[in-house]
Amino acid sequence: MIMKIHDWPTGPYPARVRIALAEKNLQSRVQFVTVNLRKGEHKKPDFLAKNYSGTLPVLELEDGTFIAECTAITEYLEALDGPPTLTGRTPREKGVIHMMSKRAELELLDPISVYFHHATPGLGPDVELYQNPEWGFRQRDKALRGMHYFDAVLKQQPFVATETFSMADITVIGGLIFAGLVELPIPAECEALQAWYARMQERPSVKNRLSISAPAMAAD
Amino acid sequence: MIMKIHDWPTGPYPARVRIALAEKNLQSRVQFVTVNLRKGEHKKPDFLAKNYSGTLPVLELEDGTFIAECTAITEYLEALDGPPTLTGRTPREKGVIHMMSKRAELELLDPISVYFHHATPGLGPDVELYQNPEWGFRQRDKALRGMHYFDAVLKQQPFVATETFSMADITVIGGLIFAGLVELPIPAECEALQAWYARMQERPSVKNRLSISAPAMAAD
Repeated sequence: MIMKIHDWPTGPYPARVRIALAEKNLQSRVQFVTVNLRKGEHKKPDFLAKNYSGTLPVLELEDGTFIAECTAITEYLEALDGPPTLTGRTPREKGVIHMMSKRAELELLDPISVYFHHATPGLGPDVELYQNPEWGFRQRDKALRGMHYFDAVLKQQPFVATETFSMADITVIGGLIFAGLVELPIPAECEALQAWYARMQERPSVKNRLSISAPAMAAD
Repeated sequence: MIMKIHDWPTGPYPARVRIALAEKNLQSRVQFVTVNLRKGEHKKPDFLAKNYSGTLPVLELEDGTFIAECTAITEYLEALDGPPTLTGRTPREKGVIHMMSKRAELELLDPISVYFHHATPGLGPDVELYQNPEWGFRQRDKALRGMHYFDAVLKQQPFVATETFSMADITVIGGLIFAGLVELPIPAECEALQAWYARMQERPSVKNRLSISAPAMAAD
């Protein structure tokens, strides 16, 4: 079974799915289709028919079903056979991992995205048809507070949600990838977050996420 | 095993968990603790220690673990024993239900919440310390477009995500409960959405959601 992923290789949201695919060793079952963010292809009718919300990535199943939203794609991948489990085994683990992943969206990744699209040139004037800079800067500040929150969490435990690597780590990684793109560095005093992020970047799934599409595309 | 739910009985986000509890017949295992939204108790240190994001509802397990975020709470409830399954059985169902539930947040429920907090008096001046009305009105318009989107979906199928009732329906119901509170009616031309919502309000889980805390609180 071959799935397609419609994404933009360097996108922070696509990174979440690419990292999850690599962690689960599913890369060989996926072909990547590039949607050019810089040209705003994700806001055009062809793509909006695949995903009403106009966001990347989107998973396309062999039967033609499109599954948008990172959390939905990773739920799908988790429900396929095979370890490791990234969203928990027990009810408590599942609850805590989903909570921390959602919190990483709410307090870090999504605010940085709003900052990028509203208080910086974003994807350029052809794509950013409406901007609200005041809201964008508020969201940047929220994301900085979020970094301090996750720093406090990581002072207490080795991973974001539990004692092992999970989707919650992947969502924080997505946030910090986006922070890097918008040049919003982790504050120096957030030492636990910095140390954790350095460890995360040693993981092959994170380090090699930009190259995983190449063999699959060659096989297309 | 008794769980606690910290919520505000008439809140649209708490409604999602109350409806899920009733659908799964788990009401008797839950005690409700009221957090007074109107007094801003959800933004005070006591509550923020339970949930950094300051949102309701929060599930408290017997071991003292707090699980915030509706999607995380419902993942927890789904992982406990017992039918019905609200988040899908097969990988495809799980993916589609999670996608449509997230889409209902993104395109309906969350925008109405932003409209309420930013472009109306919201919870009052003591709680709404910063407002961005322009952003709020944009989000109201986004929610209205969202209603047209879900109307189009419901013209094609009986439920929001699949052939059966699921968490995606519950999230749209949450959005329309909030729309009712802020007096944002479903447009007259959205006949399929209106008919579906009328059907949903006949479900005991939806109709009786405000009363389910009474017996549990009396037993407290």
